[in-house]
Amino acid sequence: MTNTASHAWAALAAHHREFGEKHLRDLFRDDPDRAASLSLSFEDILFDFSKQRLTQGTLDLLVGLAEAASVPEAIRRMFDGERINTTEKRSVLHVALRRFSGPFPDARTDVMPDVLATRGRMAKFAEQLRAGKSQGAHGMAIHDVVNIGIGGSDLGPKMVSQALRALAHPTLKVHYVSNLDGAQLAPLLQTLDPRTTLFIVVSKTFTTQETMLNAETARQWLRANLGGEVDLARHFAAVSSRPERAAAFGVGPERVFPIWDWVGGRYSLWSAVGLALMIAIGPHAFDELLRGAERMDEHFRATPLARNLPVVMGLIGVWNTNFLGAATHAVLPYNESLKYLPSFLQQLEMESNGKSVGSAGDPVGSATCPIVWGELGNNGQHAFFQLLHQGGRLVPCDFIASVRSDYPLPGHQEALLSNCFAQTSALAFGKTAEEVRESMERENVAPEEIAGLLPHRVFAGNQPSSTLLLKSLSPATVGALIALYEHKVFVQGAIWGINSFDQWGVELGKAMASRILPAFADPSLASALDASTRALLAYCRRPS
Amino acid sequence: MTNTASHAWAALAAHHREFGEKHLRDLFRDDPDRAASLSLSFEDILFDFSKQRLTQGTLDLLVGLAEAASVPEAIRRMFDGERINTTEKRSVLHVALRRFSGPFPDARTDVMPDVLATRGRMAKFAEQLRAGKSQGAHGMAIHDVVNIGIGGSDLGPKMVSQALRALAHPTLKVHYVSNLDGAQLAPLLQTLDPRTTLFIVVSKTFTTQETMLNAETARQWLRANLGGEVDLARHFAAVSSRPERAAAFGVGPERVFPIWDWVGGRYSLWSAVGLALMIAIGPHAFDELLRGAERMDEHFRATPLARNLPVVMGLIGVWNTNFLGAATHAVLPYNESLKYLPSFLQQLEMESNGKSVGSAGDPVGSATCPIVWGELGNNGQHAFFQLLHQGGRLVPCDFIASVRSDYPLPGHQEALLSNCFAQTSALAFGKTAEEVRESMERENVAPEEIAGLLPHRVFAGNQPSSTLLLKSLSPATVGALIALYEHKVFVQGAIWGINSFDQWGVELGKAMASRILPAFADPSLASALDASTRALLAYCRRPS
Repeated sequence: MTNTASHAWAALAAHHREFGEKHLRDLFRDDPDRAASLSLSFEDILFDFSKQRLTQGTLDLLVGLAEAASVPEAIRRMFDGERINTTEKRSVLHVALRRFSGPFPDARTDVMPDVLATRGRMAKFAEQLRAGKSQGAHGMAIHDVVNIGIGGSDLGPKMVSQALRALAHPTLKVHYVSNLDGAQLAPLLQTLDPRTTLFIVVSKTFTTQETMLNAETARQWLRANLGGEVDLARHFAAVSSRPERAAAFGVGPERVFPIWDWVGGRYSLWSAVGLALMIAIGPHAFDELLRGAERMDEHFRATPLARNLPVVMGLIGVWNTNFLGAATHAVLPYNESLKYLPSFLQQLEMESNGKSVGSAGDPVGSATCPIVWGELGNNGQHAFFQLLHQGGRLVPCDFIASVRSDYPLPGHQEALLSNCFAQTSALAFGKTAEEVRESMERENVAPEEIAGLLPHRVFAGNQPSSTLLLKSLSPATVGALIALYEHKVFVQGAIWGINSFDQWGVELGKAMASRILPAFADPSLASALDASTRALLAYCRRPS
Repeated sequence: MTNTASHAWAALAAHHREFGEKHLRDLFRDDPDRAASLSLSFEDILFDFSKQRLTQGTLDLLVGLAEAASVPEAIRRMFDGERINTTEKRSVLHVALRRFSGPFPDARTDVMPDVLATRGRMAKFAEQLRAGKSQGAHGMAIHDVVNIGIGGSDLGPKMVSQALRALAHPTLKVHYVSNLDGAQLAPLLQTLDPRTTLFIVVSKTFTTQETMLNAETARQWLRANLGGEVDLARHFAAVSSRPERAAAFGVGPERVFPIWDWVGGRYSLWSAVGLALMIAIGPHAFDELLRGAERMDEHFRATPLARNLPVVMGLIGVWNTNFLGAATHAVLPYNESLKYLPSFLQQLEMESNGKSVGSAGDPVGSATCPIVWGELGNNGQHAFFQLLHQGGRLVPCDFIASVRSDYPLPGHQEALLSNCFAQTSALAFGKTAEEVRESMERENVAPEEIAGLLPHRVFAGNQPSSTLLLKSLSPATVGALIALYEHKVFVQGAIWGINSFDQWGVELGKAMASRILPAFADPSLASALDASTRALLAYCRRPS
């Protein structure tokens, strides 16, 4: 039975019919205490979901759904190391990556010796670089580290490097290259000195097209600029589960860091995939990041559903998606340093749960992951918030801000927070026609002008949002925040009956690309392709 | 009568009922010629919409809708300078900004003398800076230009600066600061030399909170670092429609560049708002950008609807949104240099048409602007494309690529284009259960494994997309591309009966922020605020 066929689901559907379009204005009027009762906190994170379109009664029913969907059992199975990634027959153990002792998940299948040994090797490598003791082929200290990876081998470390850039090494710079488009790598190379540049090639299989092509271009650039006889291995490190391929590329074994099949790319920033991040912020801050995530893991594992942040956050998403009918979910950080968080969460959520077939191969029978999108909130106010306020579309939002700035300037932080809170409030409560009329009359606007403008100045409100208010962007808080979203995704996957840890949907495009590429060199191969692709290829061949 | 009540709308609704879920596989099988017939080109842009879920018959009905909605009349009225921004009683003349001669819109209301004079002043100012002849208070040449603006005073110039960065001045650097968060401006200032830095403060009203606070911080930084008695005016320029306020801030009149009330922020990159861009790429390339846009304007004004790129693009969006029911629209550039295009289009589309009240104040009666979102396509493949392929949500996509790279590297560009074309093809045609079975059997996968995995490896396909294939990222092509989207938005606004040129939805949040800010200093003021805001403020005050 799919979870949508459960009594708990039916009870929520009935509750929704009764709840209807009940307005947040009325919900706050009817329950003056809801800001306190509909919020949770964990360490330095306040999660205020009082401006979601639900009541305590809704939450109780949602917790019932989580129980009916065996969410507690799913959590236990993940932490016990069962093979919950069923289509790939693998355990899912990214939580091991932020542990500091073993055995885990149990004495028989303990992964902690590998995890801790690798983390120790990473720390040693990072410390050498940070101390200026790692030298290129000409004996000069490395000053620039370029992470070459894409998807999970890029977004996580890049996002956290930006989030914690206030802690970055003062002179050693870390860069991220992912795109096949030469317009990313080529201009970067123009700014780098090959004698002092190290490339970290990150690919689980060490066959990822984008990564291997960028790595090959990096090698050519080094060879062309360092002279033919030098030891290029001093300019490379690698992260892969296929060390023999990294060795064949020319990376010395002591610079190849393993990853394992029990961690998916989008959950891997805590592993050696985070090497560039560790180099940027140092092993100590990296450990703090892990410890924050580990404490969130423990909260997730041990806290009753109704007070469990990832569970409640996941359930709110299910309510918005499956009962209120939201097609999208906006992520709006009010921290410049979190500017890559929306892209990171796009992958985390949409690659994990953007599926319509359940673990057992049956259709899910309900909507699953919404489109996750967003931008820095303050910038969004001056761009697309118009639609959130008056576009008539339901768009649940996560507002994320920190109390203390990581780069304080006089007057900026309180103004920033005022805007963040004001937007959540304006979205929730809106402005009625009566309120617009009153305020225009107070401004002595002429009656005929009021009549013309009034409908344009009404705000329907009732746009739901949660606010995640962090004390600061400390490594531990950033770690906890990411783990919170990871587990939220897991909860939703469990409720939708999805395996959140595979990604079969990326295969077809890769296969098609490999059929199209040869047709650039040999146009006769185009005849096997579809008519549109043939036309696009023909356009490429036109003389300009 | 709203346009949704027209016969043309009803005819489309009937056509849609008949059309149903007809699959792109079948559409291509039934009409082998559709790649040619369902594409248009304009100069160096190929617009292939053959992978949209429509036929020539659909297009004919859509053109009928455009006629019924008086789109040709709307176009004429805009170019004639009528006050089509009805709520603000203004003409809409951004097209004037890319003209090179007058009179326009007519001899009586000619704006071209102001436009051309301002463009000439901009060019002179830019050339001086580019030649190293503009000096700071200590007599040193300016090396860094910081554009301080937000929304339309940021996204357009920033997006095009990135798009045309291959043409950027080799040593003079342009930066963009928008966010209230000090974490944007403060780390930038750490990298700049105050003696050689110029700030351009861009705000139509010269009261925008974010911009004025960042400008004030910049002034304090200059004062603290340049000494008390120097002439700070040599480090500032301004773009505003309120020159007296810029003067009061301390900008010399010869460095204040005007904008006018007939151009909205999101349409203003062609004006003095583009000053930082002009400084980056030079007046000649800036002129080429304008000329490309001007030629697209002429195409839009003079081409019959069925062959008119912005009209057809707009109509396809209406078909997807209002008849197929798409809630979002993805923009997926396969050019690293177009990485800010999704953010730019978010503003352009969502701020223009994210409204549910028509020009006359009545409810629109149909869905309007979808959520516009996106990322660099190649990166998206390794992140969220899973959902596009198998998530079960209809997401129309614009794929944008250029044949020639702006930063060519051996082997990169053809691999990149192969991926772009492959994704559009995989999304459109998918992979059936039979095809999956065949391919797994060919790989000798065991029958029980085929049974288990098959449903996960099926791709439903029928995900519609358009491909915009550019010959290269030349200034003229980039200008034409932006004008194409601008006019597409205009067409959709006309069909939905919306005034695309106001933005009343940004007002309420601003007003609320100004009520919340004083409560940081005086907690007693919080009592007038809603319960959630009070709780958030209380959390901010907690000792950490």
